Amino acid sequence: MGDITIKELAQKLGVSISTISKALSNSHEISAATREKVLAGVRKYKYTPNPNASSLRKKRSNTIAVIIPEVADSFFSQALKGIESIAQNVDYHVLIYLTYESFYKERMILNEIKSGRVDGVLMSISSETSNSHHITALRDRNIPIVFFDRVLEETETAKVVTDDFESSFKATEHLLERGCKHIAYLSTSRHLSINNDRRNGYLEALVKHNIDPSKHTVVQCSNHPEYNLGMVRKLLQQEERPDGIIASIEKLTSSIYDVCKELNISIPGQLKVITFSNLDIASILSPSLTTITQPAFEIGRTAAAILLKALQKKKLAIRNERIVIPSVLVKRGSTN
Amino acid sequence: MGDITIKELAQKLGVSISTISKALSNSHEISAATREKVLAGVRKYKYTPNPNASSLRKKRSNTIAVIIPEVADSFFSQALKGIESIAQNVDYHVLIYLTYESFYKERMILNEIKSGRVDGVLMSISSETSNSHHITALRDRNIPIVFFDRVLEETETAKVVTDDFESSFKATEHLLERGCKHIAYLSTSRHLSINNDRRNGYLEALVKHNIDPSKHTVVQCSNHPEYNLGMVRKLLQQEERPDGIIASIEKLTSSIYDVCKELNISIPGQLKVITFSNLDIASILSPSLTTITQPAFEIGRTAAAILLKALQKKKLAIRNERIVIPSVLVKRGSTN
Repeated sequence: MGDITIKELAQKLGVSISTISKALSNSHEISAATREKVLAGVRKYKYTPNPNASSLRKKRSNTIAVIIPEVADSFFSQALKGIESIAQNVDYHVLIYLTYESFYKERMILNEIKSGRVDGVLMSISSETSNSHHITALRDRNIPIVFFDRVLEETETAKVVTDDFESSFKATEHLLERGCKHIAYLSTSRHLSINNDRRNGYLEALVKHNIDPSKHTVVQCSNHPEYNLGMVRKLLQQEERPDGIIASIEKLTSSIYDVCKELNISIPGQLKVITFSNLDIASILSPSLTTITQPAFEIGRTAAAILLKALQKKKLAIRNERIVIPSVLVKRGSTN
Repeated sequence: MGDITIKELAQKLGVSISTISKALSNSHEISAATREKVLAGVRKYKYTPNPNASSLRKKRSNTIAVIIPEVADSFFSQALKGIESIAQNVDYHVLIYLTYESFYKERMILNEIKSGRVDGVLMSISSETSNSHHITALRDRNIPIVFFDRVLEETETAKVVTDDFESSFKATEHLLERGCKHIAYLSTSRHLSINNDRRNGYLEALVKHNIDPSKHTVVQCSNHPEYNLGMVRKLLQQEERPDGIIASIEKLTSSIYDVCKELNISIPGQLKVITFSNLDIASILSPSLTTITQPAFEIGRTAAAILLKALQKKKLAIRNERIVIPSVLVKRGSTN
């Protein structure tokens, strides 16, 4: 069955195209009788407005894009729920695009988006992203963007983040209090500001507590589970093995626990472990896992609220501000 | 900076609008010299084709929608990776819509989609969805749909699923072999065919092994973690407590482990546990968790391959077929 166009419908009903548009958008410019006539025709001929055509006219799609690296991470799935909680109140659709940590893919997505498919963008950058040229093009086209969690510092817009430096500092102090002498930090991409903040929090705590610089160990991990497993194994096989680990990637948890089992290293006896993680399953691991739990839902909710508030105003102005929502250190068996 | 339209660009370059379109789509109808001239103009005046306008002309958006209940479940995040692995080969964008298990939301999304935003749909239905009226409307508009995992049996199209009946049957037999006398099945929505298949596999195994019908226990769970926790607690507090559990929802794992800790029930000594789950963390739980692991990536990959193959043909015909990719029972500590 072929679709009927608005032009064909107008001919069948003997009205103008603009009358049909006005009837469908509840305009006061046409009478109730005309409106009824149009709606009856819409039903009879099964006419559906084409949203592409309609968004060309209105220049609004009532849709926002969320661009994130992945969803297999508990942080992002919770942040999405926070975003949805706001979007549904104002009848906005949420489109989710995944970059799978690829800068190339992120650029492709923005290129697709910038020509008008969505009204605004919420974004957490890929671990490969180190500059903001692709973002600038988006903003030049008046599509506002709000960053959350993984932000591009140089871009002037709202950024909703957590206190990565302080969380990492506190986690390091917690391990020192629990008696650790040699704490390793497992890092994610060096391009990400959240990673640098976490690493700096760790290093600053070590300096404050006069830990010998030879015991400062930063291990650069990647997006490849196999590579990371190898790095963790190498770290725990070395002669001067650390007695504490802070992992900045949730997925490293399995690698650390597996390697400890393999090498017969007891947690927390010989190695204490803290992970940046929102896994609700952390409490039933063996041993239960001490986590730096980020306010993922709240971060998503806040970023969405800023963007959608801006979209509902005539003038799309988003303040260049940094909103920090603190994380919580949840102490469990792995640092006991 | 205001955008230049194709009409303005055509005037500036002294060519027709159609020449610009042809140049941008690498048409053989125009000369290399003209093409170069147009591309130079595109660069100079920073012209970007509007994808809405362009999809109105081509009637193709090179985009598919994936409609799923959630992403906090490891099954769906892995299935998405499978879908992406196919889509990126043919330069298709993947838009993800989440229903959060709401039929209302699912209907809204399909309503939005059916008017031309995407070329095709991959879908796993919400746990509230019990009829296919909303799907029929989509198909009437020639937007093909392929179901994966949670399918609507009545809809005539391709369905990519796993062997839920057999997996559940095998899991039940595994518990019987390990000495269980009273096995409970924790069910998800009764609307879902996957749930009915799993429940029937469980019941048929009990019947085959002459288990007293008084020991057939099906507990109806919901989408609310608090409610489910209460149901698990009630089940494990009753006098005739089961000694085996098959949970059809990954998220029930935490509830079961937590309640066992609370009530001092040892796993696997007093209760053996199997969960339908793709969590890679299953092996580091305490005890490690026996799982029915679904071929999530493969299911996503196969569904995407069928849809995208159909989209690349002139005639959009998708066979009414059922493709079954088997799950694997991974035996671990919780059923030892």
